[in-house]
Amino acid sequence: MSHASTPAEDLILGLTQVVDLPGITAATGLPLGPDDIAAIIREAERYAREVLWPESQVADRHGAVYENGVVRLPPSYHTAYQGWIEGGWQGLAAPAEVNGIPVGGQELPQALWMAVSELVTTGDMAFSLCPLLTAGAIEALARFASPAQQEAWLPKLVSGEWTGTMCLTEPQAGSDLSQVRTKAEPDGTGGYRITGQKIYITFGDHDLTPNTLHLILARLPDAPPGTRGISLFAAPKVLPDGRANALRCGGIEKKLGIHAAPTCVMLFDGAEAQLVGEPNRGLNAMFAMMNAARLGVGVEGVAQGARALQLAEAYAADRIQGGGPISRHPDVARMLAEMRAITLAGRLLALEAGAALDRARLAGATEARVALLTPIVKAWCTDRGVEVASLGIQVHGGMGFVEDTGAAQVLRDARIAPIYEGTNGIQAIDLVTRKLFRDGGAEMAAVIAEIRAADPRLAEAAAALERATAWMLDRGQRDAAAAQASAAAYLDAAGWTMGGWMLARAAAADARYAPICAFYLARLLPRAAARVAEIEAADALLALLPAA
Amino acid sequence: MSHASTPAEDLILGLTQVVDLPGITAATGLPLGPDDIAAIIREAERYAREVLWPESQVADRHGAVYENGVVRLPPSYHTAYQGWIEGGWQGLAAPAEVNGIPVGGQELPQALWMAVSELVTTGDMAFSLCPLLTAGAIEALARFASPAQQEAWLPKLVSGEWTGTMCLTEPQAGSDLSQVRTKAEPDGTGGYRITGQKIYITFGDHDLTPNTLHLILARLPDAPPGTRGISLFAAPKVLPDGRANALRCGGIEKKLGIHAAPTCVMLFDGAEAQLVGEPNRGLNAMFAMMNAARLGVGVEGVAQGARALQLAEAYAADRIQGGGPISRHPDVARMLAEMRAITLAGRLLALEAGAALDRARLAGATEARVALLTPIVKAWCTDRGVEVASLGIQVHGGMGFVEDTGAAQVLRDARIAPIYEGTNGIQAIDLVTRKLFRDGGAEMAAVIAEIRAADPRLAEAAAALERATAWMLDRGQRDAAAAQASAAAYLDAAGWTMGGWMLARAAAADARYAPICAFYLARLLPRAAARVAEIEAADALLALLPAA
Repeated sequence: MSHASTPAEDLILGLTQVVDLPGITAATGLPLGPDDIAAIIREAERYAREVLWPESQVADRHGAVYENGVVRLPPSYHTAYQGWIEGGWQGLAAPAEVNGIPVGGQELPQALWMAVSELVTTGDMAFSLCPLLTAGAIEALARFASPAQQEAWLPKLVSGEWTGTMCLTEPQAGSDLSQVRTKAEPDGTGGYRITGQKIYITFGDHDLTPNTLHLILARLPDAPPGTRGISLFAAPKVLPDGRANALRCGGIEKKLGIHAAPTCVMLFDGAEAQLVGEPNRGLNAMFAMMNAARLGVGVEGVAQGARALQLAEAYAADRIQGGGPISRHPDVARMLAEMRAITLAGRLLALEAGAALDRARLAGATEARVALLTPIVKAWCTDRGVEVASLGIQVHGGMGFVEDTGAAQVLRDARIAPIYEGTNGIQAIDLVTRKLFRDGGAEMAAVIAEIRAADPRLAEAAAALERATAWMLDRGQRDAAAAQASAAAYLDAAGWTMGGWMLARAAAADARYAPICAFYLARLLPRAAARVAEIEAADALLALLPAA
Repeated sequence: MSHASTPAEDLILGLTQVVDLPGITAATGLPLGPDDIAAIIREAERYAREVLWPESQVADRHGAVYENGVVRLPPSYHTAYQGWIEGGWQGLAAPAEVNGIPVGGQELPQALWMAVSELVTTGDMAFSLCPLLTAGAIEALARFASPAQQEAWLPKLVSGEWTGTMCLTEPQAGSDLSQVRTKAEPDGTGGYRITGQKIYITFGDHDLTPNTLHLILARLPDAPPGTRGISLFAAPKVLPDGRANALRCGGIEKKLGIHAAPTCVMLFDGAEAQLVGEPNRGLNAMFAMMNAARLGVGVEGVAQGARALQLAEAYAADRIQGGGPISRHPDVARMLAEMRAITLAGRLLALEAGAALDRARLAGATEARVALLTPIVKAWCTDRGVEVASLGIQVHGGMGFVEDTGAAQVLRDARIAPIYEGTNGIQAIDLVTRKLFRDGGAEMAAVIAEIRAADPRLAEAAAALERATAWMLDRGQRDAAAAQASAAAYLDAAGWTMGGWMLARAAAADARYAPICAFYLARLLPRAAARVAEIEAADALLALLPAA
């Protein structure tokens, strides 16, 4: 490749010059200069490269082990988690204080947290899920918990001394949380007893920390049916007086990937819990938590793309066939260029969403931009993560199918990201019905105007996205089935187009990015047009559905 | 779905009405009526459904086990292989006699064999590789072996009493077979002694049959370097006098998928072997064998798509979310429709290639058509198999990532098919440089004319493929790097377009196929245009390559 920048270099360029994080923080009491950003990124990169990456394949082979009701993690995770705590990484973007109570965070921008998360997830995706879940719990508690709860729990979570979980899913309640059946009974002293079964609870049990705080969706006795009757509760694994709470891990799933991240069945048998926030408003709190988590999952797609690329580039440089390294064979170079261009586009788009969140939180901008970008980052970046991981295997040839190289693990790990935190289908419907329809397409129109202004080579794709948006606002608002039939294609078209927009901005900021940008715009951006054609052909799908 | 035909029904329609197998065989001494075809397909479907499918997940979990120098397969494979032998399946398309020697085959058409293979591979891909390899060995021996060799080996292989292998790859010689180092020394009595190490030998050792015949690429002492110095040899595991030959399995790979198919390191330590065909002409023989195998691997992509679809359709019909089965949710219906349309297109395209082979063999047509279609079937169908398997996981939501449902296994298994028997990148270069350039695009022009005539909705895609072909013949013939830079996109554009052509022919033959055809043409065919844009932008990739 003509310019092989590292992920850390891309992230520094992206944060400092493309999404202008220093500009966002300049007006706050916490200005963050380019040098600060670079130093933090380099330190995170070092932690990921030296501590996580070397053990990540061994950890995958070891896996999480469930025995006698408890989960044991790979030995290396204990060391890695110690490094995570000692580096103060968990508190990076957490609040410094809440309601006047110091909780220990560094209150740095979300975009910077996402950049650090990418590096950590590239180092070991299974490991990275533990801090990601804890960050979600911090987010929810900082917004919805009482001061007493915040004082009790936030310092433990922000330091990493405890971890957090999100207990949402039940066997009958996956994408449809209205079906949640777990019960919360008042115990007469202001507390609650939780009874029920939750599944797919990431890091629901483990041996990294002495305690875990479970955030749980459950129903109060008088709760209305459906999603308006769900409340949020918090239950620690170990109670303040040292007793074990009445909850346990009932087993872990045997999964395609992220083998070292325990995916637990959690059994609550009258567990002592506290209500967090208002009764019956649990879904709101959970969505607040999920929104940040969705950006985090989008970053996982980028990170797995980055891991696939790093492995593939190293292999292709070393593997000699036909008299030279295969990296010089044009078809292999094509795969590497696709991997690099897509990963970089996703990396920058995720930072753009993170910066939009920071603009809303720190600089008083509306939340419309981050709300629009979140489903696109979650779905487009994770679909691309799977695509890039698969290309990574292909670059390795037969070695890619053998587990030794690690290329196969990337695909196995990356494949979860389009599924959890709201499937990519749910993201697409969210984009269309909650984001686009609610403001009549105003924010999307603003983005399209920016895309158009960024680079004339984006004009055609911008026009196509505009046409697709008009179709959605017209036909889609009249016809829910049509909107849903084309929502995934719409999200995908937006993702490919916005990816091009981000690369054009990178190339404008630093000419060394011009060739990879030109590659993307000429060879990958046409995929957006194919998606727009698909959107407009909703009827061809609807014709296949049985009459309602 | 409005019309949920089974793979067996599709195959019967495809063979009898779309590619007109009865018409091809009518003029031969072996006429094959629609009823004969249907009876064979239904019997194969029954064997796959009743014998293979129920044990396929258990077999995956058991895996192939290497212990004390030998490979043990899952117990169910012994029963399954017995059924394979008793059904006479191995001999379906094998010759009845060779050089006047009866060898036991039924000499039925290749297209029918491919249809049977699809069903068997859907039942259990790992299992199916054993018969596929044996079929390749039969093919090579029937064309290149001496009458004495044919008499000794073909009846054993055609009955399934022995299995066959293809020993090509060595650690330094993957896509580039010129690097083969395995040596063959004359033993002074007309035989040879083989010494060397081969890797990635599928079913190189196993306990299903008492003997295995290894076909091996090796170099004679006086051989010229490169591919012109490679000869083909055959060495049985057990020698005619009952002694073990000096060859053994040195281990098996731990792979992403096809866990029950042993992928062996084979060590030859002066193994007794015979030369097959002319000295130094081994690559020709191997290519003859690989061409049929490549069609077989393309069929694997179709078969894994079919397996993914069957699992996803069953899950989506049963899984209730939002008050109804998720199969009625438009975005889930979209995924199922994509899976069905793509799989059906691949299925019919594979039959078209098989019929082209039969036309050449049975009806005296040229081999140009099958030569053109082979790399497209191999690469496009296997890339689509991975795509469809991944969609199948997505339909399952969280359950798709858990190994219990079997959806994850499909992706793990399907992922090998774009790699082996010549990577899909090699297929693309073969399509462009061996097929397109050698006849100046004549056969592709003939196909494009047929596509155009089939359905007016294909006109735009046909024109785009024509333009891409002209670009290849002009720019690509002048500039090998440009041709290779865009070869994969060219193959993909041809695949999507030909897939539409096949569905249009199915819809013309049977109106029940019209809705799925309309879905494909409206929503999936635009992907071809995106690929054509990519082809023409070869320079954007070449700009990234280091100067030669």
